[in-house]
Amino acid sequence: MQKKLMAEFLGTAWLVIGGCGSAIFAAGIPEVGIGFYGVALAFGLTVLTMAYAIGHISGCHLNPAVSLGLWAGGRFSGKELLPYIISQVLGAVVGAGILYAIFTGKSADIGGFAANGYGEHSPEGYPMLSGFITEFVMTFMFLIIILGATHSKAPKYLAGVAIGLGLTLIHLVSIPITNTSVNPARSTSQALFVGGWAIQQLWLFWLAPILGAIAAGFTYKYLSPEEE
Amino acid sequence: MQKKLMAEFLGTAWLVIGGCGSAIFAAGIPEVGIGFYGVALAFGLTVLTMAYAIGHISGCHLNPAVSLGLWAGGRFSGKELLPYIISQVLGAVVGAGILYAIFTGKSADIGGFAANGYGEHSPEGYPMLSGFITEFVMTFMFLIIILGATHSKAPKYLAGVAIGLGLTLIHLVSIPITNTSVNPARSTSQALFVGGWAIQQLWLFWLAPILGAIAAGFTYKYLSPEEE
Amino acid sequence: MQKKLMAEFLGTAWLVIGGCGSAIFAAGIPEVGIGFYGVALAFGLTVLTMAYAIGHISGCHLNPAVSLGLWAGGRFSGKELLPYIISQVLGAVVGAGILYAIFTGKSADIGGFAANGYGEHSPEGYPMLSGFITEFVMTFMFLIIILGATHSKAPKYLAGVAIGLGLTLIHLVSIPITNTSVNPARSTSQALFVGGWAIQQLWLFWLAPILGAIAAGFTYKYLSPEEE
Amino acid sequence: MQKKLMAEFLGTAWLVIGGCGSAIFAAGIPEVGIGFYGVALAFGLTVLTMAYAIGHISGCHLNPAVSLGLWAGGRFSGKELLPYIISQVLGAVVGAGILYAIFTGKSADIGGFAANGYGEHSPEGYPMLSGFITEFVMTFMFLIIILGATHSKAPKYLAGVAIGLGLTLIHLVSIPITNTSVNPARSTSQALFVGGWAIQQLWLFWLAPILGAIAAGFTYKYLSPEEE
Repeated sequence: MQKKLMAEFLGTAWLVIGGCGSAIFAAGIPEVGIGFYGVALAFGLTVLTMAYAIGHISGCHLNPAVSLGLWAGGRFSGKELLPYIISQVLGAVVGAGILYAIFTGKSADIGGFAANGYGEHSPEGYPMLSGFITEFVMTFMFLIIILGATHSKAPKYLAGVAIGLGLTLIHLVSIPITNTSVNPARSTSQALFVGGWAIQQLWLFWLAPILGAIAAGFTYKYLSPEEE
Repeated sequence: MQKKLMAEFLGTAWLVIGGCGSAIFAAGIPEVGIGFYGVALAFGLTVLTMAYAIGHISGCHLNPAVSLGLWAGGRFSGKELLPYIISQVLGAVVGAGILYAIFTGKSADIGGFAANGYGEHSPEGYPMLSGFITEFVMTFMFLIIILGATHSKAPKYLAGVAIGLGLTLIHLVSIPITNTSVNPARSTSQALFVGGWAIQQLWLFWLAPILGAIAAGFTYKYLSPEEE
Repeated sequence: MQKKLMAEFLGTAWLVIGGCGSAIFAAGIPEVGIGFYGVALAFGLTVLTMAYAIGHISGCHLNPAVSLGLWAGGRFSGKELLPYIISQVLGAVVGAGILYAIFTGKSADIGGFAANGYGEHSPEGYPMLSGFITEFVMTFMFLIIILGATHSKAPKYLAGVAIGLGLTLIHLVSIPITNTSVNPARSTSQALFVGGWAIQQLWLFWLAPILGAIAAGFTYKYLSPEEE
Repeated sequence: MQKKLMAEFLGTAWLVIGGCGSAIFAAGIPEVGIGFYGVALAFGLTVLTMAYAIGHISGCHLNPAVSLGLWAGGRFSGKELLPYIISQVLGAVVGAGILYAIFTGKSADIGGFAANGYGEHSPEGYPMLSGFITEFVMTFMFLIIILGATHSKAPKYLAGVAIGLGLTLIHLVSIPITNTSVNPARSTSQALFVGGWAIQQLWLFWLAPILGAIAAGFTYKYLSPEEE
């Protein structure tokens, strides 16, 4: 169990370092910056790389909503839920701390720090309801991908590719709306460093992803073929 | 059968949410927008992710032209054709409805809404004949990829990667010409919300993809090695 | 044999339609165009998709230099060389003809039509010698990737991914230098439509890739472990 | 052993040709240039392609820090360390020489030549400490990915995809900070051609990656499940 929690800690730190780090350091540079596109790929690749690196240790959830969705879908034990979620949030915070240390070597003003937001803190000004629908639907589909690609009838060696690139796809659509969460741990770590508005809006990035994930867990149970 | 139709419904909704959604929300943002490139990747990843998530349930067609091409190639039963196509169109419409709900939270004017078009509604002004040739050829090759990559002599675990990235490739070439359909369900859903010209031009995005797909089905039957 | 040649014909047409097509239609559009980056991905995906679609029929060479390199490496029979090369060139020309038909629906001036060149026809003005070195080295490494990834000790199901993305990598480096050939069939088809300078410079895009490919064939024979 | 060293030589030359070459030739071209994003993909694809081409010959390290990290993790013999590292550095220098020959055909001023740097030689002006933390953390995580994805319980056929795209991810985050090394051989080859400041700053791009890699080797030994 200790190895599992350490793997989740390390993997979620990597999700924040790679995903939020690419947004903070590289997205907005004129001419050669990676834009929303590069950030979308970076988030997906954090999950793809960790799926192969630690998937055989902890299952590579890296996300409280994923752990809850897998529990709702009957794939994950309820008594491991809380320790997994705590490890994920701690890992995310340490990841954000490393980004903070690197960035503040250059400038004290961290700006939005890749935090999630709605209304005036949505990158393109989408209101709360648009943000809520988006986070619900995106997390719902993320869990459908995860539950489907790891089903015993799916070619399981490819699951890490499908799930990682699924997260890339989610970001390609929804960065302009909420900066894309679908992951309460990632939202929490960035909000802690930004404070103020980011803390006030944090509830949405726990509530909507978790509801979407649990709805997907129950949906997939109905949709699913017999296990082999 | 009900599970299959629900999987096609869900998957085609995802194709529209992910593909058309990325175009509507993220393509045209100055500096950091994802451009045609990001939209091309997004469309491909909707199919790649669903191939691993629901491929083992319904085969993951998500497209009336694909179902018809597989039928012409002898891979799909004629009596499932109509229910599959209806599920796909309904899923696409629900996907477009979700995009409509998210987008209109910010602005009432949905613009082109990623609908397909030719002539003055082609993104770069290509005429009807160019659009027809493009949609025919692209769907023809899409079905060649699908029929080939799912052949019993091909390494079938990789089929979802090849087919998904094949759709990305198709978009890299043809977004400027017709906004890329190769999928009558995707064209129909967007046209219903846009109305007017998009409905008037919709015939091409049923006719050309279906003819291309059926031609590919017969071609591949000739080209195909013996099944193992 | 007839099926093999038809597969090579179809696949090389697709290489030109997808790779050169993305360059002609989508690379240079302001703001949302796919740039050299998107063209690089498109070329790679033509090979990746065909590797899974027709690899089990013809081996998916799609390129006279590849056929010659595989022959030099002892992987391909000399008596199939000429028919393969003829099919590849014919397929490329038909692919270019389809692009011509689509493009001239909009404009009669086809410009560079994604032809390869050096000196004043190099995209960024690199001289002949730079172009020659580049085409030699790039085709050499392309064949090392192909010979290595299809070796019996390599995980062969992934060969199509490695080879296709290898072609993407080659384009990421060398589009600015020669517009990237590494494929005499692709160079010939575009030169035929452009005429003039493109025909005059065509010798380099046969000579350098073929020399590089044959050198790689002999190198890999030395480097190669025992077949299993 | 000779074949292994030749494979490492060839592969590391390719890493420099593909990765640094894409930066030198294609990153900064106005409008259609590939930007930091394309360079990130190119570096990753050099490793992905070589993993399948020469992984079965030498293990495809291409990087002194990787060889040292694998040694620390108990996966690589100490007596092969020095010959591997020498081959990697020589390969990198030959790769850089080829880039030099191609580039100087056009212009005598090679500029930064994709060398790594900190402080005023950081692409976005990050100080030495930010650079050190970044190189340490990125190489640490690179080795965690390598050690995890090649573990006997991981789906080993996909290791080359995960490791290659892991290097892409690392570049997406850290090109703006140090131009991304995580590889002392790659840093050395470019510094030799640039001279001056690049040689003076080279110590960091040996020290930080090696410390990060060795720390990861010991960490993964603790984290790792029993080998099968």
